[in-house]
Amino acid sequence: MSRTNESGSGGLRLGVFLDAAGHYASAWRHPAAPTERFFRLEYYKHLAQTAERGKLDMVFFSDRYGIPDRYGDSFHATVKSLHSARLDPFTLIAALAGATERIGLAATVSTSFSEPFHVARQFASLDLLSGGRAAWNVVTSTSDNEARNFGGDRIPDHELRYERAREFLEVANGLWDSWEEDAFVFDKRAGLYAEADKVHYLHHRGRHFDVRGPLDVPRSPQGRPVLVQAGSSNTGRDFAAGAAEVVFTAQPSLEGARAFYADMKARAAAYGRSPDAIKVMPGMMPIVAATEAEAKETEALLAEFADPVAGLAILSDQINYDLSVHPLDGPVPELSEATGMQSRLQLVAKLMQSDSLTLRQLGRFYGGSRMHRKVVGTPVQIADFMEEWYKREACDGFNIMPPYLPDGLETFIDGVVPELQNRGLFRTEYEGATLREHLGLPRPVFQARS
Amino acid sequence: MSRTNESGSGGLRLGVFLDAAGHYASAWRHPAAPTERFFRLEYYKHLAQTAERGKLDMVFFSDRYGIPDRYGDSFHATVKSLHSARLDPFTLIAALAGATERIGLAATVSTSFSEPFHVARQFASLDLLSGGRAAWNVVTSTSDNEARNFGGDRIPDHELRYERAREFLEVANGLWDSWEEDAFVFDKRAGLYAEADKVHYLHHRGRHFDVRGPLDVPRSPQGRPVLVQAGSSNTGRDFAAGAAEVVFTAQPSLEGARAFYADMKARAAAYGRSPDAIKVMPGMMPIVAATEAEAKETEALLAEFADPVAGLAILSDQINYDLSVHPLDGPVPELSEATGMQSRLQLVAKLMQSDSLTLRQLGRFYGGSRMHRKVVGTPVQIADFMEEWYKREACDGFNIMPPYLPDGLETFIDGVVPELQNRGLFRTEYEGATLREHLGLPRPVFQARS
Repeated sequence: MSRTNESGSGGLRLGVFLDAAGHYASAWRHPAAPTERFFRLEYYKHLAQTAERGKLDMVFFSDRYGIPDRYGDSFHATVKSLHSARLDPFTLIAALAGATERIGLAATVSTSFSEPFHVARQFASLDLLSGGRAAWNVVTSTSDNEARNFGGDRIPDHELRYERAREFLEVANGLWDSWEEDAFVFDKRAGLYAEADKVHYLHHRGRHFDVRGPLDVPRSPQGRPVLVQAGSSNTGRDFAAGAAEVVFTAQPSLEGARAFYADMKARAAAYGRSPDAIKVMPGMMPIVAATEAEAKETEALLAEFADPVAGLAILSDQINYDLSVHPLDGPVPELSEATGMQSRLQLVAKLMQSDSLTLRQLGRFYGGSRMHRKVVGTPVQIADFMEEWYKREACDGFNIMPPYLPDGLETFIDGVVPELQNRGLFRTEYEGATLREHLGLPRPVFQARS
Repeated sequence: MSRTNESGSGGLRLGVFLDAAGHYASAWRHPAAPTERFFRLEYYKHLAQTAERGKLDMVFFSDRYGIPDRYGDSFHATVKSLHSARLDPFTLIAALAGATERIGLAATVSTSFSEPFHVARQFASLDLLSGGRAAWNVVTSTSDNEARNFGGDRIPDHELRYERAREFLEVANGLWDSWEEDAFVFDKRAGLYAEADKVHYLHHRGRHFDVRGPLDVPRSPQGRPVLVQAGSSNTGRDFAAGAAEVVFTAQPSLEGARAFYADMKARAAAYGRSPDAIKVMPGMMPIVAATEAEAKETEALLAEFADPVAGLAILSDQINYDLSVHPLDGPVPELSEATGMQSRLQLVAKLMQSDSLTLRQLGRFYGGSRMHRKVVGTPVQIADFMEEWYKREACDGFNIMPPYLPDGLETFIDGVVPELQNRGLFRTEYEGATLREHLGLPRPVFQARS
């Protein structure tokens, strides 16, 4: 394997980004989509156990709080055309902890509408219960729609959200350092359960939070959960460089991915961190089949089902701008009023430089992989792509986005993973116990705050 | 079985109130206490599966946010003498959903420091993932210590906490009625995932919360989780009578339990509810062995280990009053300045009327079962007690509080449950699929809010 890291192991890092149907907006319309199982634990067990069979580093679930309703100022388009209902991802990965053994479990929680004490406590508990497999994808949320479920009217502005996120993480990191590793004594005869001097108040007082601590959950196997982030703006990248251990990103092109990779490693170094302590994992949608022709047929089937309004409903929500006010067959409008996910705005702007699409065409295209890189072909072709990006330092691995489920995951695990293993690019067995060990990330050193 | 209920099935309702060590404050000092397993999922799986083997209705976990530090204005006494560290109970029951099949899963969440959107969403998700086995024990929290982890300095006063709790539950109930039962269409050919007219905004605007909705989680198998409450003050009982489906309570005496039972059923009726729609389940600590002498030996062993300071640290936290300022061997002081759990204040006052204890004696006594009824004896003796309370309308069942774990649960399941089954007082197999069906509770009717 070409690159090593702090734990001594090398090779690609692979997560799988799951939801109910898969990532193609029309995935639920695939003839094999098990719509009646979308809210059942057995289904997610099967998906997670399939990923675990492939020795993947982690399963990953995104989140948002509410049903997107920016498009047409209504949730109608979303509810009709998309698998818009979901399960709380933290609850889901906690349930999966009881049904899996080795694979990492990553869920998204926003820092904009929660209390750090609750979030730190739930992730520490999950890290204990899963034997060190928890990861938290830290987001700041982007839509007004979400704010309205928490007493607000509009989403706070970008800089304020990140300011709160930084303080939130400072509190969470502090709370995870409440109990020293060796605080427990368990001396039954003397009646000494734990050493009180090895438990610490936090006494945090800040602009957004006052939290005294200590956390009542002891230090967990990973010290703290693995922190994932997907910042794309300058502020977002800076936040990720200082705090995140895995960076998830949408990178359609090799050049763009290489530039992003170099930028994130340099930013991490500027924070005094080892470049190996931050793993860059772009999303990648593999459409895999035994022959290239078959893979293209699958893609054509998904494209046939693609509803342009579904794609535009997702995009409107992500950029916090109602695209329904423009004619479907007219050109894509200027998006200067859009305020949401910076990454999507940048990528759509770039797309429009090279292509002149109608809004209908953009909707169909965006509903495909949401600007993430799509690769269509045989296991060898997909592995070639992955190897090139990895070797050319465009990434440390990928967050695999199955186009539809469960088949889109199974074909990857049964076809592409063995090919990567044959090339020595991916593990054939889990070497460590924790997600940090899978990913080759250092374990945080305990640091008492008081 | 002597009493029937809305589902047509009768008999005792049985939950088991679990924590790491068991409920005797000295439980962790028992020679068989597996202290090294207190934070491992395998341990809780074993406990929940044991309860499920006994066909119990549910496992139940309490909660508080922080380490009690009222006694001596420090967490030292708690950390030294008690199993003070814990796991977030919601995370724990979510993990247990993946490791159990039939038993109900109840966790405590306070309404004082959380957002209703998050809480409604996590419980709806768990109800889906567990196939209709989720229950939420609604509490309002009682200690200043907890407030300090959420930006506060003191716990809000009693009436204000209940006002917030009522509105919190109104919002949660509304959010659980976001998706009609038959909203999903899953018409792949027409591209119609769900009927938008069957999804509803909440548009809640109140004193404590503004929540627009809809919830993005569909209606769950139970309609909403089973709601548990443990209010004891007049305000608390009234809240429970209007909203709760299971009432957990500490009742040391048959007469007191009968009075409480009659009062709760009457209050529920005054809200227009069927008395069968609210189940009264006092805590009960069984110390079980093959002979009465052996059971008394076990009790003596636990009592031998009892540290009076441990009991006083728990009580100080529950009544929000520092008992360390009084001499251990002096009389129990007047508690007029105490402000916390009304139930405990009432019960301690009653205890002091009939007994004159020193503070040291109170600490040892309180650390036993925290004023819950303790019954020591053979399976027949325990079953006699339970049968009498049930038949004399002192309860609909019990929340069993094993004195130590796992043995204290195993002896109950293997000794007392078969005895209850032989008497026709308890099921020999689960009849229904959901916790509501186990408990004989009606399923809430869907009611759109907009």
